[in-house]
Order: sequence, then C-alpha cells, then structure tokens
Amino acid sequence: MGTRLDLTQDVGALTARIVDVESVSGNEKALADAVEEALRALPHLTVHRDGDAVVARTALGRGERVVIAGHIDTVPVAGNLPSRVEDGLLYGCGASDMKSGVAVALRLAAALPEPSRDVTYVFYDCEEIEVERNGLLRLSRRHPDWLAGDFAVLMEPTDGVIEGGCQGTLRAQVVTRGKRAHSARSWLGVNAVHAAGPVLAILDGHRARQPVVDGLEYHEGLNAVAINGGVAGNVIPDECVVTVNYRFAPDLSLEAAQEHVREVFDGFEVHFTDGAPGARPGLSHPVAAAFLSAVGGEPRAKLGWTDVSLFSGLGVPAVNYGPGDPNLAHQRGEYVALEKIIECERRMLDWLG
Amino acid sequence: MGTRLDLTQDVGALTARIVDVESVSGNEKALADAVEEALRALPHLTVHRDGDAVVARTALGRGERVVIAGHIDTVPVAGNLPSRVEDGLLYGCGASDMKSGVAVALRLAAALPEPSRDVTYVFYDCEEIEVERNGLLRLSRRHPDWLAGDFAVLMEPTDGVIEGGCQGTLRAQVVTRGKRAHSARSWLGVNAVHAAGPVLAILDGHRARQPVVDGLEYHEGLNAVAINGGVAGNVIPDECVVTVNYRFAPDLSLEAAQEHVREVFDGFEVHFTDGAPGARPGLSHPVAAAFLSAVGGEPRAKLGWTDVSLFSGLGVPAVNYGPGDPNLAHQRGEYVALEKIIECERRMLDWLG
Repeated sequence: MGTRLDLTQDVGALTARIVDVESVSGNEKALADAVEEALRALPHLTVHRDGDAVVARTALGRGERVVIAGHIDTVPVAGNLPSRVEDGLLYGCGASDMKSGVAVALRLAAALPEPSRDVTYVFYDCEEIEVERNGLLRLSRRHPDWLAGDFAVLMEPTDGVIEGGCQGTLRAQVVTRGKRAHSARSWLGVNAVHAAGPVLAILDGHRARQPVVDGLEYHEGLNAVAINGGVAGNVIPDECVVTVNYRFAPDLSLEAAQEHVREVFDGFEVHFTDGAPGARPGLSHPVAAAFLSAVGGEPRAKLGWTDVSLFSGLGVPAVNYGPGDPNLAHQRGEYVALEKIIECERRMLDWLG
Repeated sequence: MGTRLDLTQDVGALTARIVDVESVSGNEKALADAVEEALRALPHLTVHRDGDAVVARTALGRGERVVIAGHIDTVPVAGNLPSRVEDGLLYGCGASDMKSGVAVALRLAAALPEPSRDVTYVFYDCEEIEVERNGLLRLSRRHPDWLAGDFAVLMEPTDGVIEGGCQGTLRAQVVTRGKRAHSARSWLGVNAVHAAGPVLAILDGHRARQPVVDGLEYHEGLNAVAINGGVAGNVIPDECVVTVNYRFAPDLSLEAAQEHVREVFDGFEVHFTDGAPGARPGLSHPVAAAFLSAVGGEPRAKLGWTDVSLFSGLGVPAVNYGPGDPNLAHQRGEYVALEKIIECERRMLDWLG
C-alpha cells in the first residue's frame, strides 16, 4: 500500500508529511502516486497524469482560469530526512524548495470546491535537474491545453514576496585562434590565449543594463563563466575559448539577446551553445492585479531563470510566490518557518476563496 | 649472446647497425651492453658504467680534456625499423636523433688511440623523456668527475652546424582571484577571469629580448601556454590561472629570469612551477676555438633547452654539433644523409686527430 496524504490536516503537518516522502529528481513516483490519489478523492476536480506529473482542474465555467504549480522533486537528500520541527521551523530536504508550496497548493485544492476563479493545480517532476527532463516542459509539449490559463503562480520559495517574470539566459563561446609553434621559437606561432585579452577587456568594461519592464526593475549580467586554452607546457596555443553567460531582462527575446552578444563581440568568432528566454512579469492583467492586491507587499523582479518562462512561452503570464526562503534552497540545513506557510495559505485563500 | 658492434666498419654501416638495435627510452640495455663491450675491447680506454650509461676515457695526460656525448635512446618506434638506405639516405628510428652522432663518437673512440686532447666519451640513456630520468643528469649527480673537462660536444642533430649554449626555460602561474556568485546576480561576485585580461594584455604587449651572448644572438619568448578558469556555467569564477613559459637567453640565471617575470607581472600573484637554466655558448675558450676552426661554418645560438645546460652546470662549456637534421627528429620518416655522417666524422678527426 502506498503513502496516503490527508489534505484535511493543517498545512504545516501536511508539509512535514510530504517532506518525509523522499522524492529526489527521477524518483518522484511514490509522491506523485500519493498526490494523484488524494486529488482523485476530490469530486470537484478532474485529474490527469503524465509520467510523474499530476494535473487537477476545476470546471466551474468561471470567466478566468488560474494555474497554481509546483515541482514535487528535490535535490539529493543530505542527511536531512526525516523532517523535524524546532522553534517553529520545519527542517528537511525540500522543506523550502518547495514542498511547503506544494502543501499549500494541495490544501487549496481540497479546501476550495468552488473557487472564485477556475483553478488548475499542476504538480510536476524533475525541476531540479537538466531542463530537458523537466516535467513542466514535458507537459507544455504533450498537453499544452492542461496548462492553459490567464495567470499562473509557481509556488517556488520567494519568502512570501511576489517575484515577477524572470530573466533569460544564454551561453556563448567566444573563440580566438592562433597558430601552434614550439615555445622555444614562439615567434613562428600566433598565441590564441594572448588574443583573448581584448575579449576579457570587453567583458570587464561592459556595463549591465537595468531596465524597468512592466514596472519591475531587472538587472542583467554579461560574464565569462569559463576560459580554457593550452596544448602543452612548451607549445604556443592555437585556440582559446571564453564561455560567456548573458542573463538578460525579459524585454529582450532570446534572438535579440543573441544579437546583443554578437554586437558586443563584433569581430570575434561567437558560437551560441544554449539559451532560454525570460518572461515578462505580466502583472498588468486584471487577474494578476487581484492577486497582487490579495497577497500585498511590493513585487520584485525575478533575476534568475525559472519555469515561469515555460508558462510565458504558452502565453500565460506567471509569477513566483511561495513560503520558502530562496536563500536556504539546496542547503543541508534547509528549513521553512511554519508561520510563513500558514500565512501563504491564508493569502491564497483570500484570493481564490 | 648479445649484439656486437664492429667499430672498424664505415660510419654509415655502423649507424645502420645501431639504429637496428631498438632502444626506446627505458629499454636501452641491449644497446648499452653492446657499446660497453665494444669500448672495453679498446685497450686505450678506461670504461665505466652506471645503469645504461657508459663512459670511456683516454688518460694520456694531455693539457686539455674534451667530452663527446650522445644519448642512445630514441622516441617510440613508429613502424620505421629496421633501417633502410635509399638514394644515400639512411631511414630509421633514431637515425637523425641521434644514433648517427653516437656512431661518429664510437668511430672516434676506436680510431683515435692517441687523440690530440684527452677525450671522454659519454653514452647515456633516457634523454627523450622527463628530465628527472635523464641519464646525463644522473651521471652529473652521481659521478660529476666522469664528466669533467674543458669543453663538451653533444652530438645532437644540428645539420652539421655548431649550435652554441642554450636558452633557459621556466614556467610560472599568474593567478587572479575573485569571489563566486550565481551568474544571475553577478554583481554579488568578483569575476577572476575578467581580472586576467590585464595579464594577457601584458603578455601581448611584451617585446622579447634578443641579446647577443658570447657572440651569438639569442631570441627570448614570454608566452601564455595555458589559461584555465571556471566553476560551472552559472557561477562567477573565483580563480583564473595563466600558465606562462619564459624562454630566456643564457645571460640570465634562472633566478634573474624569475625576477624578470616577477617584474613583468608586478602586482599579480606569481608562482614558479619549474625551471632550468640556460648555458652560455662558451666559444671563447681556446679548445672551443680550435673546434670551431676544425669544423668551420658560422655557429648559431641554440634556442631550445638541451643537455648542454647540464654540462654548463658542471662548469664545462658545451655545444651541440651532429650530422642529423633537427627538423626530422621524432618523425616517422626520420632519416640522415650518409654523406653528412661521413663529413661529421672527418671534421671531428681533423680536430682530435
């Protein structure tokens, strides 16, 4: 018999229960089964399953539909299971990132048979590993209709603050070339590492944009994240590769960001190796405005890349909002404050109740 | 029964015989045994052995002693054994580097019972691999008296031209440091790769010295031979290491060369990883002058590091001079022109006869 989740218990106890079901990326089946079973017990929801992702929807014919989503996987356990409570803090792998958010979403699913907007609850796998295995990406390709909506909230840890949109990211290799020669007769060669000096000077002198997009200020970054060159200790190197990471604000498309990098390194050989667009915060939509009003506080720009970009790609404005502390994510001593979970649940109920 | 070397055959045939005794570095025993046996048969020589190095000396009480040295090992065989002669060229592994030189030295040893100067013949192992296994280095530590003399000729391939002295070499790591941060918030970190830009600019702008030392013009080089930095594709790197190779003329000691590197990279963190001094050409000594006169031609500076530096460290001026073509060394199609071997033997006989 599998794990059972009681969605009537208080949200702190439910979080602890979920944390104790180990679900490191790729090994989410037990938790996905428990989530599916608990949701199928709720007659007001239609439940779908794809791999270890579970989607449940109300179908009340409301004028708006919102999506509430969270990943059920965690980074590897680091001696931090089972969970324990100390001084109002719940410790355990995934407590902050993001099983407390998952618990809030499950509680809403059970507590709101007739929410003010139609709601789609999305619980997905493999968020903590390479993006190609990401469960939300898989759903967006196989079942984009399951993810349709006017607005989405990802319950990632944000310390209870609304984080809007996300910045895009791309990586490029800026390559300089030369000609090999024995270093005892270096003038017969051309040193590709020396030729990378101007590339580093461009990076060092580059001033990052800080544009305001839909009312939130973003902060870009263009950085070398690696440099490699060299053949042997007595050979003039004939190639040097500077790997550059550009984090760009969501007013640029991926293509526009690539064009910017090409301009910055005009005259150099540039290869793009990977990239993902950002997402505009989309806070101007009426359903987002109602959410802002219910949650309160000052929204801030999300600088890192997150899965909100996947919703954005489907035309669904999305924000991050969750009870966890992002600074504790992926740490052995990860915890979440019980009162933060309760507060998050209360605000979401205010919005959708 | 081991290999036998007949030192009365002509020098071309003797070279072919020696080439056919495979002696890749570390596997010189068969050839060392044959060399020792052939030399012990000569009553005018005193023979010593250390590992697979063989040293033979005349003791005629002459006013000067010269050392004639050569390594008996080769780089790995590359389908180029046994030797073959075609159009006056002897093909085979080690033909140029440097069994033709070894053959000349063995012929001199046999043909000159009463040379004009006392002669020490040195045949040694493991020159083609890491310097710590070098047979001449071993002899210089264990039996420096065996190598004593007023002048030394290493019969490395020089195409029949005297190459004087050698440049020194050192490697240093120039390190820049920073502070890690997630690349989505790069301003919280300090990029160590960007900080390496000025190091590369210094290298690119550096003008190499071309000093004249004892009448020969050298040509230095200061080059990055490697650069490495980077933690992960989304992390601001906190360390970047530029590996620099300085090839320096023999008017500088190793210590002075290190001081020069420190000055060039003033303000940067510099670590020296290895180094070997050069050797002055020493062509002003009377015994060298007589050698120059006998051999003829215009001597040139040796730019690469060679074992002459080991003699120089013992206070013995040394030059490279041999019949092989240095451009063919270590190549599958390695060969030596038979007439070059004969000419080299004749000139050496002129000098010592």
